[in-house]
Amino acid sequence: MSDEGRRLDPEDWNTFRRDFHELLDTCIDRMQAARDLPWQPKPADMADKVAIGQSGNDSKDVFVRVVNDIMPYATGNTHPRFFGWVHGAGLPVSVAAEMVAATMNSNLGGRDHGAVEVERAVINWLCKLSGLPETAFGILTSGTSQATIIALSAARVRLFGDVRKTGIGNLPAMRVYIAEGGHSCVAKALEVMGHGSDAVVTIALNDQGQMDLNSLADSVAHDQARGIVPLAVVGTAGSVNTGIYDPLNALADFCTDNNLWLHCDAAFGFWSVLADKPWGDLANGIHRADSIATDFHKWLGVPYDCGACLIADRDLHRDTFASRPEYLVGQADGLAGGELWFCDYGIELSRGFKALKVWTAIEALGTDAIGAAITDNCKQAALMGQLAEQSSVLALVQPVVSNLCCFTINHGLPADIAARLQLSGEAVFSTTTLAGRPCMRAAIVNHRTTSDDIHIAMAAVEREVLNSR
Amino acid sequence: MSDEGRRLDPEDWNTFRRDFHELLDTCIDRMQAARDLPWQPKPADMADKVAIGQSGNDSKDVFVRVVNDIMPYATGNTHPRFFGWVHGAGLPVSVAAEMVAATMNSNLGGRDHGAVEVERAVINWLCKLSGLPETAFGILTSGTSQATIIALSAARVRLFGDVRKTGIGNLPAMRVYIAEGGHSCVAKALEVMGHGSDAVVTIALNDQGQMDLNSLADSVAHDQARGIVPLAVVGTAGSVNTGIYDPLNALADFCTDNNLWLHCDAAFGFWSVLADKPWGDLANGIHRADSIATDFHKWLGVPYDCGACLIADRDLHRDTFASRPEYLVGQADGLAGGELWFCDYGIELSRGFKALKVWTAIEALGTDAIGAAITDNCKQAALMGQLAEQSSVLALVQPVVSNLCCFTINHGLPADIAARLQLSGEAVFSTTTLAGRPCMRAAIVNHRTTSDDIHIAMAAVEREVLNSR
Repeated sequence: MSDEGRRLDPEDWNTFRRDFHELLDTCIDRMQAARDLPWQPKPADMADKVAIGQSGNDSKDVFVRVVNDIMPYATGNTHPRFFGWVHGAGLPVSVAAEMVAATMNSNLGGRDHGAVEVERAVINWLCKLSGLPETAFGILTSGTSQATIIALSAARVRLFGDVRKTGIGNLPAMRVYIAEGGHSCVAKALEVMGHGSDAVVTIALNDQGQMDLNSLADSVAHDQARGIVPLAVVGTAGSVNTGIYDPLNALADFCTDNNLWLHCDAAFGFWSVLADKPWGDLANGIHRADSIATDFHKWLGVPYDCGACLIADRDLHRDTFASRPEYLVGQADGLAGGELWFCDYGIELSRGFKALKVWTAIEALGTDAIGAAITDNCKQAALMGQLAEQSSVLALVQPVVSNLCCFTINHGLPADIAARLQLSGEAVFSTTTLAGRPCMRAAIVNHRTTSDDIHIAMAAVEREVLNSR
Repeated sequence: MSDEGRRLDPEDWNTFRRDFHELLDTCIDRMQAARDLPWQPKPADMADKVAIGQSGNDSKDVFVRVVNDIMPYATGNTHPRFFGWVHGAGLPVSVAAEMVAATMNSNLGGRDHGAVEVERAVINWLCKLSGLPETAFGILTSGTSQATIIALSAARVRLFGDVRKTGIGNLPAMRVYIAEGGHSCVAKALEVMGHGSDAVVTIALNDQGQMDLNSLADSVAHDQARGIVPLAVVGTAGSVNTGIYDPLNALADFCTDNNLWLHCDAAFGFWSVLADKPWGDLANGIHRADSIATDFHKWLGVPYDCGACLIADRDLHRDTFASRPEYLVGQADGLAGGELWFCDYGIELSRGFKALKVWTAIEALGTDAIGAAITDNCKQAALMGQLAEQSSVLALVQPVVSNLCCFTINHGLPADIAARLQLSGEAVFSTTTLAGRPCMRAAIVNHRTTSDDIHIAMAAVEREVLNSR
């Protein structure tokens, strides 16, 4: 056991310190140059280059490989003309927080320590921002997918108190109602939860692209008449294809009248609450939801991954997940103390210190600056919509309401044009199909984006469309 | 829009660079001094100190608050005499990787980029290490809790192909068999999945503290005779209370004969495969499992959080989770390309770059050095067991087989003594109840621990026990 106790820490801390600082400089260089570093295809032999060997290597050599062989081939969402899917742009100040969190290596599943207070502060702040009642609380998650499972699990426990013990096998069938174009994470949650994707009821849209309330009422009544139990109505705050917000106040009225759970899928759309009007009003009514799912890694720019689930009834939330085997029983004093163990509010018993990157972002940047960046993104999406309307080869599919813009092209296929622009490094659009028409799709959630970027990207699209004739 | 595009990045990169380097020095100082930094109670006013305000602050000031008000109050698991629960100790080289991962800000849910190749490399390496067949693959998770949901979901799809669509409502009841003292994450998974905790069947232990095969066979036969379907048998590799390993080869024989899914809960115990004999043989037979759940953040020391789910049948794994709405449809070229989208293998659509901290750890340290540290921990647990046996005031509850040691005390209560030692900063034990007797419990998963630490900790325990007379 001669070298026990020090094998996996650096042999020479001074060398390690020097190499780490050098690596940090490379990271800062990269963040500073984000504007000049679009996505680039990874080399064909990358899999070979990163295959894991047997024996250890000098950490300096490993850092060099990280810098040369891995770092350049990131997803590209740090670039200001990355508009594909919904990818947050990353905040440098939160990179520093991630380094600290890894240094502390706290386990946020439970026990009495400082990191728990930071997560509590983040959740309290988010509850207040959302306008939920004083009874609300929540938990940080890997993202909205996990948050949706947590929220719908709480809805299920509210309906059937014994479900944790006895399962859903002998219960009536349940349904979740969501507008056409609502997010697939709801179906995935219901698959995992044992209800199956058939439990999703898709509700038609009204002429503004929102969930149609009459159709919702008809569907719920139809199901209830058949003995089917409505588990939840999902109101979407920011549809993934159109950026449209369901009428959350009207949904809340309906859910209150019918004693239904209102879950709000606000993965990116939540953050419009920080924007100037009119965008700041898009999510009005969200404070009346029974649960809210949102992501910090999208519009807020906190590095991947980090989302949250808020639940208006904290006791119900706890009752949905709390369980402590013998070896986790709490105590009055010491590490086993503390009244807040986050394992009682979610799926995981071991949990990382995601809260610090959120806390650091909000404390360092402030909600005013973040709100201004979000407002800019909405203005940029509106500008993109105007440019599409003015173009002779592009056409807007529907009015831009928030930070998303989808448009059709006169010549060529959106997928081909998106791929060409990605490969050229000019801009990243993704594609979708709206009303049967293939579209170019841009979701603008990047604080580095400027209106110049919108002009550059749209000019590149027009050029490629014209070249496709 | 005068300052659009730069609000949330540093105003002055040189200042930010300087402050970040200073923060890094503090982090390295902390890692280097891990031996002198035990857990300490957080101050009573911590919640007030970290409450989130409205307005932004200079990032330097925020870093100072992180260093002064948050960092000292970590969970304490970086300290070499932290033996509580099962908390990994943290690897400095992986702290560097976390900084790089946050800089890249890659989303590992899908798309064609380099980070995916790193996760593929980690999964391939882990599959090879586990000895699973060539058909195996997997996914990184937040930990074993999530991995268990993924594994049991795959088991469910193998049994009932339509379950993703139609749910479990019309299916027969299912059961999962696990030895007494098996981990609570299995019950939690079954709650989330809609089966309820009643679906857990606890199997008695044999005289070596392992799952008793006759009892298992009886339970399965009894259930099948009643029309209940066995969903899976869970073999535990490293019980959370005793460190005991179920006889995995015998379980695999039984499961093969009866066409049952064998899931292996190897949260920390997996890593004994890297240890010298006899510990290196503890998990023999794990290569025959249908699924394996393990954590990188425990015995491997990768910073929180990171686990993995391996599934022997990759196609089944994919069939359990794959689904792509319109806006995620893949393409031949560009970012929307790539044949491996990890969202098809798990619950989450947005996923962080956890793989890099694992990759960096393995590449920099090598499996030999990691295995030597793991071997040391097993020797240290054996030493702790000897000291307990030799003590006039302590008694070993059962033989130490791996890295876990539980012992009773003659005077006082384990919870009180554990709390006193935590508060004094001398050592962190947790507590549990074994065979009705309250015990001190130590799980040694820390590469910084030495045999001296074991002597110091046990002397402190004896002193406190004697003081309790």
